[in-house]
Amino acid sequence: QCDLTGQWKNDLGSWMEVFAVDRQGNFSGEYHTAVSSAQKPIQPSPLIGSQHLDEDGQCTFGFTVNWEKFSDSTAVFVGQCFAEDGGKEVLQTSWLLREKVDSPHSDWKATR
Amino acid sequence: QCDLTGQWKNDLGSWMEVFAVDRQGNFSGEYHTAVSSAQKPIQPSPLIGSQHLDEDGQCTFGFTVNWEKFSDSTAVFVGQCFAEDGGKEVLQTSWLLREKVDSPHSDWKATR
Amino acid sequence: QCDLTGQWKNDLGSWMEVFAVDRQGNFSGEYHTAVSSAQKPIQPSPLIGSQHLDEDGQCTFGFTVNWEKFSDSTAVFVGQCFAEDGGKEVLQTSWLLREKVDSPHSDWKATR
Amino acid sequence: QCDLTGQWKNDLGSWMEVFAVDRQGNFSGEYHTAVSSAQKPIQPSPLIGSQHLDEDGQCTFGFTVNWEKFSDSTAVFVGQCFAEDGGKEVLQTSWLLREKVDSPHSDWKATR
Repeated sequence: QCDLTGQWKNDLGSWMEVFAVDRQGNFSGEYHTAVSSAQKPIQPSPLIGSQHLDEDGQCTFGFTVNWEKFSDSTAVFVGQCFAEDGGKEVLQTSWLLREKVDSPHSDWKATR
Repeated sequence: QCDLTGQWKNDLGSWMEVFAVDRQGNFSGEYHTAVSSAQKPIQPSPLIGSQHLDEDGQCTFGFTVNWEKFSDSTAVFVGQCFAEDGGKEVLQTSWLLREKVDSPHSDWKATR
Repeated sequence: QCDLTGQWKNDLGSWMEVFAVDRQGNFSGEYHTAVSSAQKPIQPSPLIGSQHLDEDGQCTFGFTVNWEKFSDSTAVFVGQCFAEDGGKEVLQTSWLLREKVDSPHSDWKATR
Repeated sequence: QCDLTGQWKNDLGSWMEVFAVDRQGNFSGEYHTAVSSAQKPIQPSPLIGSQHLDEDGQCTFGFTVNWEKFSDSTAVFVGQCFAEDGGKEVLQTSWLLREKVDSPHSDWKATR
């Protein structure tokens, strides 16, 4: 069965810790990003999300990171867990980063 | 100040209810999608997320919808609140939908 | 049958002109963007792309806009043509904008 | 200076050949995809696009692949060229794949 609880590291050097996953699949945690487009120094940021609890270990999941400690932005990640040969678990994810813009006219460039 | 609490409707006819937002900006709620690519009938699905608490009313936010009641998929939404002339609040969002795939080789087509 | 030849306007006030579409579905044209994140003043920019030639008038298509006249960036658009009631043709599109970055380490933020 | 002319291979086993790039940066070529979500067997497919001609060798570029030989879909790729230590050139790309849908109501799921 999947359980996102624990520490996960990505190719950019960012890592996150997911605290306990509850029976509904909800979890919170902390994201330590290695990259930023903000002016202020990076700080660990809270994450909150949800995962499926499939028994095959290949669950999809999603979570939100609120960067309020050093920026106006919010990021969301969505992905799936896979078990590699040898039992190592790998998360494949995609993400969107929303930056705060002044008005709806700038909405077109707010998300990357 | 922004507060996502309440009901929100989109152009496709989907709507969501966000329950109380706590002091950290975390919230939960329920998403009623009008569209689906799943086989099973649509059901209201739990959402969980986080928002900034800026005083200008133009907060960014993000949330995860876990479609487990009728599919293997998970969606994430990220966006920003805007106040239109007349005081009406509008949410601009982008989203990603992750479908479950058999193996990492199919990862390229899992997200839309 | 679909034919992208002609002028098309979007919600942001940008418009494009597609010149003749050849028998393979290839076309060139000019894109007049109303929005930009570049420093230099906006200029009409060349586009080049390809469309399907289905007889039902609902072709998918894609094209590239090279912003070299005022920026280092390149955009791609992909979409589909639809005929509304009354015969008006509408293009539904999605796009990606690639900005030039210094090194692969900044690749994560280069595309919106 | 950048020049996309030649053969390029990606991590999924797909490869493409870019034929001569002209003075405006326009090019055509052929894309040999290793992956597909179509029913019919994969076939080499024409591509057409455009690149910047910066002298630092880190140009952005974009191109469209028309899958008409075996599907109704169109893909667009956008990216940037980088030179690794040792002189090896690497392309970093993002893409969107548009599938044909029946009506604008299905537009939400047409692009991945």
